[in-house]
Amino acid sequence: MTSAPASTRRGRPGHDRAQVLAVAVALFNEQGFDATSVADLTGRLGLTKSALYHHFPSKDALLQVALDEALDALEAVLRDAESDAGDAAQRLRVIVRGAVSVLTDKLPYVTLLLRVRGNSDVERAALARRRSFDQAVSHLVHVAQDEGMLRPDVDAAVATRLIFGMINSLVEWYRPGGAVDADELGEDVLRMVLKGLQADSAPRP
Amino acid sequence: MTSAPASTRRGRPGHDRAQVLAVAVALFNEQGFDATSVADLTGRLGLTKSALYHHFPSKDALLQVALDEALDALEAVLRDAESDAGDAAQRLRVIVRGAVSVLTDKLPYVTLLLRVRGNSDVERAALARRRSFDQAVSHLVHVAQDEGMLRPDVDAAVATRLIFGMINSLVEWYRPGGAVDADELGEDVLRMVLKGLQADSAPRP
Repeated sequence: MTSAPASTRRGRPGHDRAQVLAVAVALFNEQGFDATSVADLTGRLGLTKSALYHHFPSKDALLQVALDEALDALEAVLRDAESDAGDAAQRLRVIVRGAVSVLTDKLPYVTLLLRVRGNSDVERAALARRRSFDQAVSHLVHVAQDEGMLRPDVDAAVATRLIFGMINSLVEWYRPGGAVDADELGEDVLRMVLKGLQADSAPRP
Repeated sequence: MTSAPASTRRGRPGHDRAQVLAVAVALFNEQGFDATSVADLTGRLGLTKSALYHHFPSKDALLQVALDEALDALEAVLRDAESDAGDAAQRLRVIVRGAVSVLTDKLPYVTLLLRVRGNSDVERAALARRRSFDQAVSHLVHVAQDEGMLRPDVDAAVATRLIFGMINSLVEWYRPGGAVDADELGEDVLRMVLKGLQADSAPRP
């Protein structure tokens, strides 16, 4: 562990930018972003308004950084998959495994992302990035169907929604350090999703 | 279509009990149960408070009837499965297919149920019924694993959560009358979930 760079040490001692973000995201998830006031945030953080604004100029700026935390990680998984030399089914495996890791590693940030409904420019931009991500995955499902690796009788867009329905449901019940191991969970999702989609004629993995 | 019985015709003409319930549930889903006041309800319904109370004595009574609508239907699916003469895998098929039907048929009621967090006695009773339902399904997954029909390497409780993660995600995107047909969707979920869980040694369906 190296000490935090000086630029994250501004504001009240004991509250660097990352800590402010984490506490704010926890509060947004508890009571909803719209229902959380700046006064709620400063109260929970034990910071003055000007100390909070020192880190983040507005509630929307906080939201944007929090949503980026989840979206950047999901898009990195997509890039990993696209640079994988394997076929479309293998690339989907990289995405499913990677997405489960992002959810378990960055649970509060993904939880916040999944609750975004498009009530502001920041929220609409996040929804647009989620849509692009879904479209890229849906395209891969389609290619894997064309390659004969995935069953052709499930619509690619519906399959993508169902796969992410399963993955995203983790935010409802997965708790870090709980009875369910994150790595094992990733394998379980992979087994269920990709075996479920596998074409009858495809070789068994 | 027969005309509604006289007992549902009380209150202001044009607002029978079922209509009041449907409008209230739509409003709860829009703005949250806790955030919806009786004044919001009477405003949306165009009813006086006393006309509303004529149908339902309280907001909690409305919630209870709404949650029963979803839970009664899900428990009926469980009874159908338990009276099926087939093996555990076949009973699970009945449950998955039936649960998708309940979600698509009673979408607003299930949406409301899935948002319940246990903030009152009515909500805690609903959560207890959801838990019993999940435990019954989890037990069936376990039996199907013992019978060699489902892969034994996924924990039964985790598999149940993942299956219902997939099914429950329908409330996020399925819209009645939209591009995705409800029956076709039921078949897709069935193919993905049960093929995904199928043991390698089990006969292909």
